[in-house]
Amino acid sequence: MSSDPSQLSWLYRGTEEIFPHRPDSDDKNENLLARLAKSERPLRVKLGIDPTGADLHLGHSIPVRKLRAFQDAGHTAVLIIGDFTAQIGDPTGKSEVRRQLTAAEVKQNAQTYLDQVRSILDFDTPGRIEIRYNSEWLSKLDLAKIQELLSTMTVGQMLAKEGFALRYEQGTPIYLHEFLYPLMQGYDSVAVQSDVELGGTDQKFNIAVGRDLQRYFGQTPQFGMLMPILIGTDGTQKMSKSLNNYVGMSEDPLTMYSKLEKTPDALVRQYFELLTNLPLDRLPENPRECQKLLAIDVVSQYHSPEAAQEAQKSAQTLVQGDAKQADAVPEFSLSGVNFPAPLYYLISATGLCKTSSDARRQVQGGAVRLDGDRIDDVNMSYESPTELDGKVLQVGKKKFIRLVK
Amino acid sequence: MSSDPSQLSWLYRGTEEIFPHRPDSDDKNENLLARLAKSERPLRVKLGIDPTGADLHLGHSIPVRKLRAFQDAGHTAVLIIGDFTAQIGDPTGKSEVRRQLTAAEVKQNAQTYLDQVRSILDFDTPGRIEIRYNSEWLSKLDLAKIQELLSTMTVGQMLAKEGFALRYEQGTPIYLHEFLYPLMQGYDSVAVQSDVELGGTDQKFNIAVGRDLQRYFGQTPQFGMLMPILIGTDGTQKMSKSLNNYVGMSEDPLTMYSKLEKTPDALVRQYFELLTNLPLDRLPENPRECQKLLAIDVVSQYHSPEAAQEAQKSAQTLVQGDAKQADAVPEFSLSGVNFPAPLYYLISATGLCKTSSDARRQVQGGAVRLDGDRIDDVNMSYESPTELDGKVLQVGKKKFIRLVK
Repeated sequence: MSSDPSQLSWLYRGTEEIFPHRPDSDDKNENLLARLAKSERPLRVKLGIDPTGADLHLGHSIPVRKLRAFQDAGHTAVLIIGDFTAQIGDPTGKSEVRRQLTAAEVKQNAQTYLDQVRSILDFDTPGRIEIRYNSEWLSKLDLAKIQELLSTMTVGQMLAKEGFALRYEQGTPIYLHEFLYPLMQGYDSVAVQSDVELGGTDQKFNIAVGRDLQRYFGQTPQFGMLMPILIGTDGTQKMSKSLNNYVGMSEDPLTMYSKLEKTPDALVRQYFELLTNLPLDRLPENPRECQKLLAIDVVSQYHSPEAAQEAQKSAQTLVQGDAKQADAVPEFSLSGVNFPAPLYYLISATGLCKTSSDARRQVQGGAVRLDGDRIDDVNMSYESPTELDGKVLQVGKKKFIRLVK
Repeated sequence: MSSDPSQLSWLYRGTEEIFPHRPDSDDKNENLLARLAKSERPLRVKLGIDPTGADLHLGHSIPVRKLRAFQDAGHTAVLIIGDFTAQIGDPTGKSEVRRQLTAAEVKQNAQTYLDQVRSILDFDTPGRIEIRYNSEWLSKLDLAKIQELLSTMTVGQMLAKEGFALRYEQGTPIYLHEFLYPLMQGYDSVAVQSDVELGGTDQKFNIAVGRDLQRYFGQTPQFGMLMPILIGTDGTQKMSKSLNNYVGMSEDPLTMYSKLEKTPDALVRQYFELLTNLPLDRLPENPRECQKLLAIDVVSQYHSPEAAQEAQKSAQTLVQGDAKQADAVPEFSLSGVNFPAPLYYLISATGLCKTSSDARRQVQGGAVRLDGDRIDDVNMSYESPTELDGKVLQVGKKKFIRLVK
């Protein structure tokens, strides 16, 4: 499989680091370009997934998008679902990330994950995707084999790892089993004979362990390819659901559009680079146009160009206060609501506000509208779903939902 | 099973440390005497064995003798043969102790071990001995269980272990799998539900890990009982074959007797305490008599009182230069020797000297006798086994062997 280096801009786009990487080297073990050029078969490109069942956001999409770029260049995406790790959890119970899951939960979560990345990856072209569960090989390891894995590393090497080094210095307990995680992830690379592993910049150590283990087992070590951690829509912190600075991959077009349309100017270029394939040298000069183009492109990816256009139209309409005309408003079914229902209860039930008391404040502050009409009576209540059916409930300028019976 | 504390001198004899141990406590988890007194069943007393196939010496006999004392008090000796550990060895190949053995070697070595301790332990009384191979449980551990074992300890706790602490400080690599050994030994205690574990003073850490794991798995933690490391016949260093300051458990009566009869005065009392059951307050006042009594008692244990008496007689005869009269001299078969055979070759072939060049030096130094006659011709040679048959070859005052066709 030969690749023209001049056509490999997709490889570097939004890539923070490739290792090992000696651009001047012709050795395909030191230079990913050389390996791409010389390999006579598609490369196997690994991405590991924790089946925690989380709603994915655009931050999660970055390595997945890079994986898609490899697929488009003819290579094989190897998605590894860490079902074994998830099922054993963390016996100390100290780690939220390592909560122990049942087999059924893991299966459900893996499906949720796959559903969410379906719009990014090529699941259809034969040979372009392989989905593996790491229980396939990890459940078969016995003490002798685990001892062998452990023997490939020293305590000093492990303690040099960023997170561990700091904790050891501070005297925070590091439990011995924590040393297993990098080795398990590394052994995944051996099991699937990975050529390239993708990950965030925080994955460098684990990917390097994979290289060591591959070498130990006589394989050509994989390349590591590190992508930046995405800054959230607040422009300062890592994108995360708990900080509410995220754009969810399965949010409705209008919500997605409305959030992205407000991307801080300082981030727009990086968002373009990491979240779209648009040529970076031909972006609009007007910052507002840039934001809109970004929003349109991303919504198109996860929904469709039509949905994106419609979301844009709805957003404009809504901004103009004409909520009723908007078509792309998400719907909320009233079937689960007991009537008579106070307004503040409805607002929190729909999720437009997090709590009833917050909903009350919004009503008092004049931020709540029903079909465009402001309602500022905190004691407002509705007798039946019929009187609300089809109406748009709105809080502030960006949050709205259509109530349906 | 109630035990009168006043009759428990066997428990403390030659015991360096019991832990935990609060003699004033009535709690059977803190005081071994209380547990002995209150237990309604025989206690399970664990001793682990590395099936390395070594010739055992009296240093090895110490915890085995303590095990016998427990047997005599009605308890169950649980001998654990570390076959699993021996078969996985040390993958780094850096440890001599952890050389990887085949299943057949392990089986053979275990047999060699059992043959050697047969004269110490009670193998006959029903319920007094249980021989277990740790592959029974260790081979069944999977990654989930191993992770659980590892999670019970922190890196800091492990690095606090004597050997590790020093190496970590000095920057000598500690491989991760080395952390497994204490946990494997500890898990053995869980598997056999040990009440007491015996070991040398160097085993305190590992026995304590066993206590932690038992607690983790809901068992009452075992007591640790530590015996001193025996000083060799040189009076200075730990008894060891390689330092040639040892008395082997399967050496012939005369060799054993001759070595013990020369026990340094400073050690005689400790040897009595650790290697015999003789009352320490009734030892002979004359130091020579003490040495002889020690030698007689120990030889009696491993052979018989008659053999001991005979060995004493032979030793006296030999010291008087009358080697030919001695009956208890070990025999060496000449059937494997090619004739004509030089004297120095014979000396090294019988093992009286380690090398031919050492044998030459002994001849030159006048230390070699055949049937009591000194031979100082370094070129001496013998034509056939017939002219040597029945004669006693002697090097120095203590080493002799009877040559037989």
